[in-house]
Amino acid sequence: MESITPVILCGGSGTRLWPRSRASKPKPFLPLVGTQTLFEATLARCADSATFAAPVVVTGKAHLSHVEAQSANVEGTSVVVEPLAKNTAAAIALAALRLPREAVMLVCPSDHHIADTAAFAAAARTGAQLARQGWLVTFGIAAHAPETGFGYIRRGEGIEQGGFRVDRFVEKPDRATAERFLAEGQYSWNGGIFMFRAGDFLDELAAHRPVLAEAVREAETRGHAEGARFHPDPEAFARIESESVDYAVMEGTTRAAVVPVDMGWSDIGNWQALHEARDADGDGNSIQGPAELVDCRNVMVDSDGPRVSVIGLENVIIVVDGDEVLVTSAAGTQKVGKLGGASSQ
Amino acid sequence: MESITPVILCGGSGTRLWPRSRASKPKPFLPLVGTQTLFEATLARCADSATFAAPVVVTGKAHLSHVEAQSANVEGTSVVVEPLAKNTAAAIALAALRLPREAVMLVCPSDHHIADTAAFAAAARTGAQLARQGWLVTFGIAAHAPETGFGYIRRGEGIEQGGFRVDRFVEKPDRATAERFLAEGQYSWNGGIFMFRAGDFLDELAAHRPVLAEAVREAETRGHAEGARFHPDPEAFARIESESVDYAVMEGTTRAAVVPVDMGWSDIGNWQALHEARDADGDGNSIQGPAELVDCRNVMVDSDGPRVSVIGLENVIIVVDGDEVLVTSAAGTQKVGKLGGASSQ
Repeated sequence: MESITPVILCGGSGTRLWPRSRASKPKPFLPLVGTQTLFEATLARCADSATFAAPVVVTGKAHLSHVEAQSANVEGTSVVVEPLAKNTAAAIALAALRLPREAVMLVCPSDHHIADTAAFAAAARTGAQLARQGWLVTFGIAAHAPETGFGYIRRGEGIEQGGFRVDRFVEKPDRATAERFLAEGQYSWNGGIFMFRAGDFLDELAAHRPVLAEAVREAETRGHAEGARFHPDPEAFARIESESVDYAVMEGTTRAAVVPVDMGWSDIGNWQALHEARDADGDGNSIQGPAELVDCRNVMVDSDGPRVSVIGLENVIIVVDGDEVLVTSAAGTQKVGKLGGASSQ
Repeated sequence: MESITPVILCGGSGTRLWPRSRASKPKPFLPLVGTQTLFEATLARCADSATFAAPVVVTGKAHLSHVEAQSANVEGTSVVVEPLAKNTAAAIALAALRLPREAVMLVCPSDHHIADTAAFAAAARTGAQLARQGWLVTFGIAAHAPETGFGYIRRGEGIEQGGFRVDRFVEKPDRATAERFLAEGQYSWNGGIFMFRAGDFLDELAAHRPVLAEAVREAETRGHAEGARFHPDPEAFARIESESVDYAVMEGTTRAAVVPVDMGWSDIGNWQALHEARDADGDGNSIQGPAELVDCRNVMVDSDGPRVSVIGLENVIIVVDGDEVLVTSAAGTQKVGKLGGASSQ
């Protein structure tokens, strides 16, 4: 059985985990859950050489030093350095063009947390079998709550080995719709994890987005390698249309499949999500850094230095990072990105 | 009319306003309400030379540099430097021994806040008249809530000019008793503010606590002056019994009077009390230092440097001081003194 090539996308930094995540030290490169950074954990999930080939990382210049430092121990890592951010369709197409047409790609975001790595690996093996039959596979993340912050995937008829045709992709729903999806049981979250052969992806992109496909091909053809780095041609790259892989390919193709998987997944989309991903004590409190909690429940403290003393609070998150202190209710974590400090970076 | 001599007691530092108040920078010497420190404000309340003579400050060696720095502009200030803390009976007796027997003393703690200084001055004038008739006067602070953290004073028959005989002093009550006191209307809080002639106080002390009175007299007789400082004899001082003025004198004398006064008083006994003493915006929030509040009510932020961003909280107090961050519910402020950081200073 041929191996799977991990394609790891290291995109924008975001503002929702400010002040720990900042423009200069973005989310994928921080040890948010456990001792590994999210990027390191993403590499580690695909490190078994019996299943996986060396990874391809697609990133921007701003993150290149982080990527190279944190992947230094992963033999054979190559890096595609985007001169601009052009969303996921272009990023994946660039990686596909650097691989043999028969290579099975496993496309992963670099800033998600997956607690059950064995379930992830099993889904990857299932996805690879479907990909080798020409399917464009997306992972369907088991929905445990009526989340309104994710896109959903409705499964259709079963194919084999735990895979299904995709019935349809659904935009982020409102609360009532999300509750209906959860009750119906046919819906999964779209976690942005995909598997397909490089050639199949490029063919579908050419069919559905010929201009985009051609622009990426030109940027790749005129690009140049520099050791393990590949630099697409900046002028050609600048002309690429910015579009997500979901819109450009997955929603249009007739060969979309979904592999449902329940693997303790989180996009760590805000501080409350991070709180839930971290280990907690019997009162639901989780602490990183020096802290003392008295009469607290479901309190999270994350301090990079100062001691944090907390009394009598419930469902509160406290983050200390250098010259910034964030104190928010669990519900308030949705608004962190709009704070003056987060938006003025 | 002869003037009143302010006697200002600068005692222990306490732990209830940790981490802002610390052993090295105790509560009286911090600008907790407005721009003046509590000690400076205490001096300023007694600065009118038409009513007040130069103040006598009684303090310990640890606080001497703060006292002298913050009273440098108050002409004629003298300082009694206690080698040890021996509670209020000894402190007041030392000051009394340094004054003429006829001098009317106004004994004030140095770490309370008084919003209505005109009401304070009016009460001081009333108290002085009673003191000149031989009464040992205590201020009866108007009780606005069933506080269990203060002693109470029950007034008896009226004397004149707004004064009353003290019916009795009451220890800190339980909640039900405090509510009864509040409903009854004859009770005031004991704020530790006293007025009497120096000679009357010394006579009553000698009558009720002859050993203590003699020990203080010996410490004073063997002491020495050093400019504006007076140093009691350390060996004699060490033998003084540690007792409060309430126990040693006020509860025993038959000449105790109370002058009720409603003057926006607070002992700033914890962070919630400080929150209440500070100006707040329309949502009840009060901020010192850089901060951004979103969806907050009755939140207090006090930061000595880092920006504090707060989302979605109510009745929470956040204090940043150097290497310490305190986040507490309003009710939790009672427990601040028991935190590891506060108790290990």
